[in-house]
Amino acid sequence: MIYSTCVPVAESGVMAMRDAIAYALTVSEYAEARLDYLDDLADIHTLLELLPQEYTRNKIVFTIRTKTDGGRFAGREEDRLKALMGVARHNPFLIDVELDALADNPTFVSYLKDSGASLLVSWHDLDRTPDSSVLTGLLEQMSAYSDRLKIACAAKSVDDAIRMLELYRWLADHNMQETHSLISFAMGDMGRFTRLLCMHLGSPYTYASLGTVVAPGQFAINDVCRIGRLVRERQESPLS
Amino acid sequence: MIYSTCVPVAESGVMAMRDAIAYALTVSEYAEARLDYLDDLADIHTLLELLPQEYTRNKIVFTIRTKTDGGRFAGREEDRLKALMGVARHNPFLIDVELDALADNPTFVSYLKDSGASLLVSWHDLDRTPDSSVLTGLLEQMSAYSDRLKIACAAKSVDDAIRMLELYRWLADHNMQETHSLISFAMGDMGRFTRLLCMHLGSPYTYASLGTVVAPGQFAINDVCRIGRLVRERQESPLS
Repeated sequence: MIYSTCVPVAESGVMAMRDAIAYALTVSEYAEARLDYLDDLADIHTLLELLPQEYTRNKIVFTIRTKTDGGRFAGREEDRLKALMGVARHNPFLIDVELDALADNPTFVSYLKDSGASLLVSWHDLDRTPDSSVLTGLLEQMSAYSDRLKIACAAKSVDDAIRMLELYRWLADHNMQETHSLISFAMGDMGRFTRLLCMHLGSPYTYASLGTVVAPGQFAINDVCRIGRLVRERQESPLS
Repeated sequence: MIYSTCVPVAESGVMAMRDAIAYALTVSEYAEARLDYLDDLADIHTLLELLPQEYTRNKIVFTIRTKTDGGRFAGREEDRLKALMGVARHNPFLIDVELDALADNPTFVSYLKDSGASLLVSWHDLDRTPDSSVLTGLLEQMSAYSDRLKIACAAKSVDDAIRMLELYRWLADHNMQETHSLISFAMGDMGRFTRLLCMHLGSPYTYASLGTVVAPGQFAINDVCRIGRLVRERQESPLS
């Protein structure tokens, strides 16, 4: 079990975004390009031309978050979906799209499928953690669109946080452990431990902060690396 | 890697203490008998007579914490050491004694050695986490008294908490991983994750709360068990 990280990069200018991604990938295995931070969606095309294909295809998760999901994008949904389709044409490592956007736009879904782009279906609740039955219902819906799933909710209690981790059991219960990958963790101070434990339960990576930690409960990348080294050293010791 | 727990039990009456320990051991592998909570140190003898040997010898960590170390005992140190020697005569699973008490009382140390009692040397800082060099200096001193070490400090930052986990590296660096056991974690909300991660790094158990969680950052035993089950299921899956 190796700790891997994905670092969100949020810059308003296209050159700054490119440089920040390049820097992020010197310290993190993956980077999340938060395209909603760009001043203009038209800049996305330029960004994709500037980024080395090696990064785009193997290391970058692209997303355009709306305000509802904690992002900055406040334009028309139609424009957002068009921009995402533009990203899909570049065959990115992952394109992160929210469940609702998929459920509401069958034509968009068909386009993504035809493009062959790797889709990460995501769902977020920035205020609370719903009941476990609601969460597994969401996973059920999400798994209809892709075998890569991400679900993150704000935890107000340890119980909330643990229920997010218990979603890994849902994969096992549905014999999806070998075919699907799940990133499930709890946001907020009470959920901090889930950002590490999720990797012990099968998450391909954890989201970590490059500089100052903004999201409560998130670790700085350096901190995840320090803990990851300890875990690896222990695993490589004769005792494990 | 299996999650094991030790549940502190703090009752003022001897019968209540016996019953609470018996109950604790139905849900937890180990219990910590917080003898400082007993109304009268003379009750310790009665308690030890009442407890089944199977518990005393295999499952109970006995301790008498002073106020400095977060306990309730406010009597004379001489009386506390005498009471601890009384416990040692019963060949308990573990007797938890603070480093300072050992360093200040060579006769007490000799008595414990001669008794053959298993000693857990502990050190606590309820206010802060000292520098790493101070912490490793403490481990050095502690390891002169026993091969079972416990160190816990209040963390005010993620860095504080990680430094507590990095103490597991000290064991490896001194080729003590196979001969010594270390319980090292951070207290407080910022340290919550270390109470789980410590078990991935070699801690024999984690301290968890039986009922309402009082210590900030501590998990309720039920929560540790829920997470432990998930980790075990993952380890037993074909993917691990």
